[in-house]
Amino acid sequence: MPQGLSGTLGDVGEFAVVAALASRFPQASGVIVGPGDDAAVVAVDGGEAVISLDMLVQGRHFRLDWSSATDIGHKAAAENLSDINAMGGRATTLLVGVGAPPELDVAWALELADGLAAEAAKVGASVVGGDLTRADAITIAMTALGVCEHGVVRRSGAHAGDVVALAGRQGWADAGFAVLARGFRSPRVVVDAHRQPQPPYEAGPEAARLGATAMIDVSDGLLQDLGHVAAASGVAIDVDSARFDVPEPLQAVGAALGIDPKKFLLTGGDDYGLVATFPAGAALPDSWRVIGAVLEDGEQGTVTVDGAVYDEPAGHQHFR
Amino acid sequence: MPQGLSGTLGDVGEFAVVAALASRFPQASGVIVGPGDDAAVVAVDGGEAVISLDMLVQGRHFRLDWSSATDIGHKAAAENLSDINAMGGRATTLLVGVGAPPELDVAWALELADGLAAEAAKVGASVVGGDLTRADAITIAMTALGVCEHGVVRRSGAHAGDVVALAGRQGWADAGFAVLARGFRSPRVVVDAHRQPQPPYEAGPEAARLGATAMIDVSDGLLQDLGHVAAASGVAIDVDSARFDVPEPLQAVGAALGIDPKKFLLTGGDDYGLVATFPAGAALPDSWRVIGAVLEDGEQGTVTVDGAVYDEPAGHQHFR
Repeated sequence: MPQGLSGTLGDVGEFAVVAALASRFPQASGVIVGPGDDAAVVAVDGGEAVISLDMLVQGRHFRLDWSSATDIGHKAAAENLSDINAMGGRATTLLVGVGAPPELDVAWALELADGLAAEAAKVGASVVGGDLTRADAITIAMTALGVCEHGVVRRSGAHAGDVVALAGRQGWADAGFAVLARGFRSPRVVVDAHRQPQPPYEAGPEAARLGATAMIDVSDGLLQDLGHVAAASGVAIDVDSARFDVPEPLQAVGAALGIDPKKFLLTGGDDYGLVATFPAGAALPDSWRVIGAVLEDGEQGTVTVDGAVYDEPAGHQHFR
Repeated sequence: MPQGLSGTLGDVGEFAVVAALASRFPQASGVIVGPGDDAAVVAVDGGEAVISLDMLVQGRHFRLDWSSATDIGHKAAAENLSDINAMGGRATTLLVGVGAPPELDVAWALELADGLAAEAAKVGASVVGGDLTRADAITIAMTALGVCEHGVVRRSGAHAGDVVALAGRQGWADAGFAVLARGFRSPRVVVDAHRQPQPPYEAGPEAARLGATAMIDVSDGLLQDLGHVAAASGVAIDVDSARFDVPEPLQAVGAALGIDPKKFLLTGGDDYGLVATFPAGAALPDSWRVIGAVLEDGEQGTVTVDGAVYDEPAGHQHFR
């Protein structure tokens, strides 16, 4: 609650500020899912729409020396489309706002647009409008709108006994970031994963059809994002690290940089895979790999690895 | 078209860049109104939704020494809600993205949220989510989603012989800006109009009911925004300056600062009034004042004042 919340954004941290902000916003009856999930769901003209907004800032979410304008367009759209995917939805519509300095080349802006359009085309979404304004740092705001044809999957429905399963890549973009941060440009496959994530856009609606009880996209780190599911659902989750195959490129990056590659898997963000809970015994296709379970007991809101608290930061938090 | 468009954003200017960007975005069949209007209209779950995104940047769209956080919240929401109004729609939903430095007081962010929520409440809209991220300058991105219960009014439907009518205040916020820019704080009524615009939220759906043929909100300047209607509709428009009553506060500011107050009326932005065209003979209620006409001849895309080209910049354009 906002009462007693004092200090700067840096003091208080992203998640507490977001919770305080959300508490200021009364929700009308047409709001089906309000603040606090990957996207909101609202009544529209007799139906329902799922909608989300993301903001990306030069130097925080992307670097012009690491990524082309096309890459940044792909990544911005992917992050936003992934929010719809994480609700079990299919995005139909994107809007984009761009703040940029007047010195920016028009060619760069057009390449950004091409990247956005190409990523949107992967799900059949159209970029229908937006805004262009002057700003010192390149800033991209995106809104995705879509529909949940197979029902909405929230963060809050996980039950004790459910299995936890992952779809899509995990750890690749973080390995790419580690490589780029040390001034390298290879292995190319992980650098490319950082530049243009490959979210599993089929998997969100599929999870809804398969009866997923909760879902989130892995944007900030697997353990941290699973923590949001655990907190929203009031459950404890354990991840079984033996269930992960460590992909060869992650092994190579780990060996070259002296990093345990499981760190990429457990705490890496920016691949925009999905992690979901399903009732025990659900028949899951190959697109979903079981990586853990919702515990019958355990402290609500916690995520453990192989039964123990994980010792490192579980993911990325802004302002911290 | 993007071919041949070279140089920087500053060289090319906002409107040409926006047109080039829009040409990069293919539109799927579910897009009813794509880029180039106040908002887009898309098919959603059996119905239709109207949607728009705006971005506001500290130092460009607001100044912390001129406006409180609450003021900025009101203004950001008003600008965005106005886009829906300008399509004849009613907004139901807002999303907000905030980029801010870690040194920002949480109290400031909460007051911003209160301003957003209060403005949204004027139309019964809910703030359902958003994003919070780190940025050097405070940056606000907003998306409004709504419905057009009485049909969609675009920029492109004006016909020769239509009357041009205005709803809501015009010139007040610009007079307030002129006062603030010279270091004054009064007349309070125009300063308040700059800080918290009062868009005529009833007038948009009303215009749709009344059979408006085209509509736009006055965000950048009356003549410039009418120019968008003239261009989209392929018509010429003449504004009859004798139709304007110059409100007393604008006369006072004009006299004090040595500015012809008609300049506020003709080129001022940020009041978020609506200007629409209606078939000649339409019975308009008092909320709409006839201020001009769509000409039977005249150069397509032009707006004249009392039959002559207006000699000053018609409004605000980013990057110029």
